Amino acid sequence: MPTPRMNLDAYQIDTEPFYLSTGQEIAIAEAAYHDGTPLLLKGPTGCGKTRFMQYLAWRLQRPLVTVSCHDDLSTSDLVGRYLIRSGEAVWTDGPLTMAVRAGAICYLDEIVEARKDTTVVIHPLADDRRQLPIEKRGELLTAPPEFMLAISYNPGYQSVLKDLKTSTRQRFVALSFDYPEPDKEVEIVCREGGLAPEMAKSLVKLAVMTRGLKDSGLVEGASTRLLILAGQLIGRGIEVKTACRAAISEALTDDRELLAALDEMVSSLF
Amino acid sequence: MPTPRMNLDAYQIDTEPFYLSTGQEIAIAEAAYHDGTPLLLKGPTGCGKTRFMQYLAWRLQRPLVTVSCHDDLSTSDLVGRYLIRSGEAVWTDGPLTMAVRAGAICYLDEIVEARKDTTVVIHPLADDRRQLPIEKRGELLTAPPEFMLAISYNPGYQSVLKDLKTSTRQRFVALSFDYPEPDKEVEIVCREGGLAPEMAKSLVKLAVMTRGLKDSGLVEGASTRLLILAGQLIGRGIEVKTACRAAISEALTDDRELLAALDEMVSSLF
Amino acid sequence: MPTPRMNLDAYQIDTEPFYLSTGQEIAIAEAAYHDGTPLLLKGPTGCGKTRFMQYLAWRLQRPLVTVSCHDDLSTSDLVGRYLIRSGEAVWTDGPLTMAVRAGAICYLDEIVEARKDTTVVIHPLADDRRQLPIEKRGELLTAPPEFMLAISYNPGYQSVLKDLKTSTRQRFVALSFDYPEPDKEVEIVCREGGLAPEMAKSLVKLAVMTRGLKDSGLVEGASTRLLILAGQLIGRGIEVKTACRAAISEALTDDRELLAALDEMVSSLF
Amino acid sequence: MPTPRMNLDAYQIDTEPFYLSTGQEIAIAEAAYHDGTPLLLKGPTGCGKTRFMQYLAWRLQRPLVTVSCHDDLSTSDLVGRYLIRSGEAVWTDGPLTMAVRAGAICYLDEIVEARKDTTVVIHPLADDRRQLPIEKRGELLTAPPEFMLAISYNPGYQSVLKDLKTSTRQRFVALSFDYPEPDKEVEIVCREGGLAPEMAKSLVKLAVMTRGLKDSGLVEGASTRLLILAGQLIGRGIEVKTACRAAISEALTDDRELLAALDEMVSSLF
Amino acid sequence: MPTPRMNLDAYQIDTEPFYLSTGQEIAIAEAAYHDGTPLLLKGPTGCGKTRFMQYLAWRLQRPLVTVSCHDDLSTSDLVGRYLIRSGEAVWTDGPLTMAVRAGAICYLDEIVEARKDTTVVIHPLADDRRQLPIEKRGELLTAPPEFMLAISYNPGYQSVLKDLKTSTRQRFVALSFDYPEPDKEVEIVCREGGLAPEMAKSLVKLAVMTRGLKDSGLVEGASTRLLILAGQLIGRGIEVKTACRAAISEALTDDRELLAALDEMVSSLF
Amino acid sequence: MPTPRMNLDAYQIDTEPFYLSTGQEIAIAEAAYHDGTPLLLKGPTGCGKTRFMQYLAWRLQRPLVTVSCHDDLSTSDLVGRYLIRSGEAVWTDGPLTMAVRAGAICYLDEIVEARKDTTVVIHPLADDRRQLPIEKRGELLTAPPEFMLAISYNPGYQSVLKDLKTSTRQRFVALSFDYPEPDKEVEIVCREGGLAPEMAKSLVKLAVMTRGLKDSGLVEGASTRLLILAGQLIGRGIEVKTACRAAISEALTDDRELLAALDEMVSSLF
Repeated sequence: MPTPRMNLDAYQIDTEPFYLSTGQEIAIAEAAYHDGTPLLLKGPTGCGKTRFMQYLAWRLQRPLVTVSCHDDLSTSDLVGRYLIRSGEAVWTDGPLTMAVRAGAICYLDEIVEARKDTTVVIHPLADDRRQLPIEKRGELLTAPPEFMLAISYNPGYQSVLKDLKTSTRQRFVALSFDYPEPDKEVEIVCREGGLAPEMAKSLVKLAVMTRGLKDSGLVEGASTRLLILAGQLIGRGIEVKTACRAAISEALTDDRELLAALDEMVSSLF
Repeated sequence: MPTPRMNLDAYQIDTEPFYLSTGQEIAIAEAAYHDGTPLLLKGPTGCGKTRFMQYLAWRLQRPLVTVSCHDDLSTSDLVGRYLIRSGEAVWTDGPLTMAVRAGAICYLDEIVEARKDTTVVIHPLADDRRQLPIEKRGELLTAPPEFMLAISYNPGYQSVLKDLKTSTRQRFVALSFDYPEPDKEVEIVCREGGLAPEMAKSLVKLAVMTRGLKDSGLVEGASTRLLILAGQLIGRGIEVKTACRAAISEALTDDRELLAALDEMVSSLF
Repeated sequence: MPTPRMNLDAYQIDTEPFYLSTGQEIAIAEAAYHDGTPLLLKGPTGCGKTRFMQYLAWRLQRPLVTVSCHDDLSTSDLVGRYLIRSGEAVWTDGPLTMAVRAGAICYLDEIVEARKDTTVVIHPLADDRRQLPIEKRGELLTAPPEFMLAISYNPGYQSVLKDLKTSTRQRFVALSFDYPEPDKEVEIVCREGGLAPEMAKSLVKLAVMTRGLKDSGLVEGASTRLLILAGQLIGRGIEVKTACRAAISEALTDDRELLAALDEMVSSLF
Repeated sequence: MPTPRMNLDAYQIDTEPFYLSTGQEIAIAEAAYHDGTPLLLKGPTGCGKTRFMQYLAWRLQRPLVTVSCHDDLSTSDLVGRYLIRSGEAVWTDGPLTMAVRAGAICYLDEIVEARKDTTVVIHPLADDRRQLPIEKRGELLTAPPEFMLAISYNPGYQSVLKDLKTSTRQRFVALSFDYPEPDKEVEIVCREGGLAPEMAKSLVKLAVMTRGLKDSGLVEGASTRLLILAGQLIGRGIEVKTACRAAISEALTDDRELLAALDEMVSSLF
Repeated sequence: MPTPRMNLDAYQIDTEPFYLSTGQEIAIAEAAYHDGTPLLLKGPTGCGKTRFMQYLAWRLQRPLVTVSCHDDLSTSDLVGRYLIRSGEAVWTDGPLTMAVRAGAICYLDEIVEARKDTTVVIHPLADDRRQLPIEKRGELLTAPPEFMLAISYNPGYQSVLKDLKTSTRQRFVALSFDYPEPDKEVEIVCREGGLAPEMAKSLVKLAVMTRGLKDSGLVEGASTRLLILAGQLIGRGIEVKTACRAAISEALTDDRELLAALDEMVSSLF
Repeated sequence: MPTPRMNLDAYQIDTEPFYLSTGQEIAIAEAAYHDGTPLLLKGPTGCGKTRFMQYLAWRLQRPLVTVSCHDDLSTSDLVGRYLIRSGEAVWTDGPLTMAVRAGAICYLDEIVEARKDTTVVIHPLADDRRQLPIEKRGELLTAPPEFMLAISYNPGYQSVLKDLKTSTRQRFVALSFDYPEPDKEVEIVCREGGLAPEMAKSLVKLAVMTRGLKDSGLVEGASTRLLILAGQLIGRGIEVKTACRAAISEALTDDRELLAALDEMVSSLF
């Protein structure tokens, strides 16, 4: 019962994604790729981890299979399962197996959200064995050199219950991401949000101010992504303060006092 | 094994729904629609979020697929599953996939009630990738420009356990809804409840009074919807106080003291 | 794949059920029925909520589909599921869908016992949309005018975990039920228990006394139903005190002290 | 798709079971049977509840279907489920449905151990409707007059989590059981354990002593059943003290101090 | 649809197992067997309960079906389930049903580990009914006289959550096991571990010392089984202290201080 | 219905794995193998347990079947399950059964992560019975002499909830692993990381320093595996401090203060 190879063309990234490097992350990731070492990306929401993976996949010319992890993601969801076809149980590869067979990059986004079995199933794939045991088929798959495993998580969210096990962590080369430097962030917001530099500069200033509110009750400050959304609303003719309220303040919090503080910040800038 | 396209005619809204705008929410929502940005609606029960979505769908002439989220709503419920047909496992799109394929508006009502996996499955659909990975089919669906994602929740209910993750929130343009201004609410109750303006005015007064009881133990005050229900009972010949008791007081609480307080409010008005 | 219409003859109530009205509950329920508004019944165990629904169904000449809710009642149990027939997955309507299609009255007894998904699936059916989305079939069912939704619960039992959500409550016209006035209760016990008025009067006196024990540790006092059971045992020749012990005291509690208190009450009356 | 009637011959009790009445429980149970009222048996482990049901079934000449309830007993286990036969889903009655159809006695032993849904599914069967809704078949079964429902539980075990709901209790005529009077218990042990009266008397004395230890840490004293087991070991030639240790002391507790206390009791008697 | 009888030859014990009796346990077990009374074995890990059951099965010449109980052992695992064969649901007996039909001994090892339903399903089998209701088949199986039920548990482990219910305990004749007397234990270790008596005596001394550490933090002392493992390592040429560390100390604990204490004990003996 | 023998060639280790022995672990493991005794490996992450098993399998010339245990690993995942083939339920061996039949080494990595049923299913296989009951098939498999069972766990992680039961532990000969002696670790890092001895020595010094941080908040110090990863990055031209940060510091912790402490350690060495 042969397993049909999935066509991974849809996962190939053909155009260079816009990515501004902020350190040696590209060199390290490429070294890890050539050593067959898996990659761990750490950093806050919307700071560019996903974009980095898209850029890396484009550079390495490998398909990028992304899995957003969650509470109910089981081993079967990743590795595959049997489905009934004409009364036969036909094996269907999950995204991880698919990526291993095709020598693609498999990116498990927010891995700590997944059930523990998910993080364990990648263990033999994440050390020098580079093997994926598909227990339901009695198959032991060895990854080709082109395959790369990458996982990400946001250390700001970690709780005791949802932490990466040491036996998982100690298999990865780890890259720490953060919001870009103000200059770079202005450049990104101009380009992606379609804004004039002055307006972008003010939005970045606003973002930096919100990030300072983290100790005052805000779970996290405005990400670069929110600045871009605000910029797009402004570009569509929405008044600046209204756009900031909708794309930044209301997206960040429901708390009346924090909303008032954010309104004041907006007023001081525009 | 082709997936039959669902006929979404039943989801098309042909007549303009009655909706009184209370701010710039329509302009922002339309801008977000044209930018391909998803929408987050916040606000208390029965204040018009669902009606707003119906109105927006009618304006944009897109089918509206609404999913009431709940504890057991799984990814499969949203994305789809395999069903057996003549011994074959045939893929059946869930409402979200159906909406993505058809370029409809998918509205996930009370998203925080859903299991965490549901909120994560929309992540790649809610950023600039606008992709829905259907892992069980190994399919990566890209949303057409006409597709819009909208979610709603009631910040008044949030608990630590059921809060929207920052990584989810920071993908949306957010609109905050509240009960309409008294004048507008009177207009709505007149029209939908079929009442004379004087009676509607008194009902709105009553509603405002109940909303003031929120700090005295009432979970939430009377919504516009309850005023309309009361108005309809009155229109059917039920005596005003009896109608208020059935449609407002008893619907709001079981607490004897609060019921007595509500009775007094009713007596002071009618 | 057509869905066979269930024959709801078995759910039709042909003979007028015995029901003594205690207020305007019939007028309100009929008004709600004609407005397409759902009904919420509140009240203690065995006070006549179920009997009221039977009476209402008989008056409106609609079949009555009752579902006793419980912890494991899932959306599928209510809405329907696919079953295998000759290797085909054939859709089978659940009781709620069955009632919607047939324009029957669907009565969800003790709704708060159900899983949260059950209470959410009725939301679009319980507002002016009057729609039941059958997500597994991609079908959006609109209820005919004859369909009525009714739910019940016992406010005396509510805990924080099992309370009706505000967003659910604020869709219903609510009727509060209680034990009937002594005169009416005597009339009911005479008729249903087959007792002479004197004996019935004493039983009702006993019930009123037990209801006063509620603050002394008894969860709830004797319901009208228990009085009828006691009356029936007496009619079969069981000695009065023995009958009261079996049908009332032992049914109410296992606590030795409360049993002794109940015994004394019985002795004081017979 | 007709449902084959189960042959309930195996559940018929042909020989009169040995049962010593201790009060009016037989008259009450027979009256309840003729009124169509369900029965609730309360009492400690091994005091004769099961034997009483066997005796009642023999007297009424009805088959006795007993279900030992437990944590995982689901509604489907009681009511029935679809099973695949030659590619068809064939409905299979559960024991409760089987008993309803055949007009048998259905005895749910230790009902509070069951999941809440089990106790709710019997509600419409336990009031004057006497109906069993089989939701998965859309069938509403009305019980014939010969059908009787009986449930049991041990009030000594009840916890807050596992208590019978008031709405369940208030549908039953309740009988309280306890260990038999010493004279009767001696008679039972003689007969069932095959012992001489003197030996039986000493065993009953021992039992009464152990029942007095309940406040000193023993969960429950020796039941009549354990006395019979001890008697049988003695009848097989096992020395009295050894038999008491194996059939009574070690069966009652693992606690060394309680075991020592029990040993002393045995030594003082034999 | 007949149920094929399993061939229980593999469960027959042909050679007399080595078992040193330490009391009247064999006489009591044989008496219970002939009375049709079930057996409850209590005692610490590795003290010979399993070996006793093997010996008893050999003496009685009955097949021995052992089930190691665990958290997820369900009623279906014990009683049986329907499996699909050529599109038919074919019933497959579980080990308990298999043993009942064949008149074998069914030994449920560490019964308290099982889910509560498992312990309840044996109730009608464990009293004078000796019946196994197979609810999914509507079958009521009566055990032949040759069938025996035995269960075991370790009282040292019991917690409030995992205790045998009184209604379960009071159906069994109970035998308490403990480590053998030093002389007998030396005899066993000599024979099974292949050691000279002097060495065996020292190992037993070590075991007795470790059992004394139970109040100093060790969950349990070294079982006879561990002494045999140590003996076997020594027989293979492993140095005595190394063998004791691997087979006894490291098997007993991970605690550094306890390991040091055990090392000292070993040093004082060898 | 014969069970096809899996081809275990893929599990055979043909080339001698690099393994530096640090004690008598090889002699003990071989003695245990020849006695049919199972093996328990204890020790921290990345210290060489997996490599030891690979080396042992190569020495004994047996296939090595490794299972990474996790929360959801069920008995069926280990033992096997029925799958549908052409409408037939065909039994498929799990990895444990597969290893038993083939006389392979089955290595259950991080056994305490598995559900309790997994640890119990190995009990009869881990004592002198060496039997695997496959309850779903009614099959009792006896392991051939070539079969070996090995399990591992990390005592540093144990919590009350996830501890090996005494009845499990006391069946194994236990080997305790730790990081290799500095000299040996340098040798390993040179060989596997492709580094000059001087650089390897500094990395090992760094590792020893991080291991000393365990009481200052670090869950675990750097494993030998991380040193190798750092060495490989250095070999690819990544600057030493950058490589140490990515492969060691960031892999060990997210804590800013600990990261600063680690940075200082790195600076003091390079």
